[in-house]
Amino acid sequence: MLNHPKALDLVFQALSDPSRRVMVERLSRGPASVSALARPLTMSLPAVMQHLQVLEASGLVRSEKQGRVRVCRIEPKVFAKAERWFAGRRASWERNLDRLGAFLAESGDDHPTPRRRS
Amino acid sequence: MLNHPKALDLVFQALSDPSRRVMVERLSRGPASVSALARPLTMSLPAVMQHLQVLEASGLVRSEKQGRVRVCRIEPKVFAKAERWFAGRRASWERNLDRLGAFLAESGDDHPTPRRRS
Repeated sequence: MLNHPKALDLVFQALSDPSRRVMVERLSRGPASVSALARPLTMSLPAVMQHLQVLEASGLVRSEKQGRVRVCRIEPKVFAKAERWFAGRRASWERNLDRLGAFLAESGDDHPTPRRRS
Repeated sequence: MLNHPKALDLVFQALSDPSRRVMVERLSRGPASVSALARPLTMSLPAVMQHLQVLEASGLVRSEKQGRVRVCRIEPKVFAKAERWFAGRRASWERNLDRLGAFLAESGDDHPTPRRRS
């Protein structure tokens, strides 16, 4: 899933819904049952299960039955992949700003501004 | 836009499409015309314009006419808001891991493991 070109599509799609972000926010504080995930949300349990399915399909969250309870947890690798996408873009534009800075500094050397007499 | 609860919905929705991510990747290297954005994409210019509209509606990208050319650039504040969402979640689960570590260390004190004789 992680190296499939659609992996990030599914992750960002999953995060584009505020209820699913609330679920991820809860899970970032530790594993939780489906009913704990549902508590802050004003929706039916089946609706929560549907959101959970979208999160699981994206790989961001996984769940397993522990006795009679389904316990959900975040999948750090998939979360990190989305984080890296942002970090890559930021690195790219910071490099670009550095180059621009170097260019402006060089142009400054070619055309020095007149100094004030001291 | 930035403080509206739907702001992140629109940003993640915009990023859930691979062509729009390619456009943002190009723009993270510096401002670009629409035709420069279209170059690596195998789609018509109107299709590129539609993707650009989604990116602009999310606030991630803005564009302006400079003479006969529409120049697009990234909007760092909106980009940073999405980055902060990830950073917040990561901070939350790292705090949680720290607490778990502290708890395990404390439990270890209560039930010390037998030391090897030296």
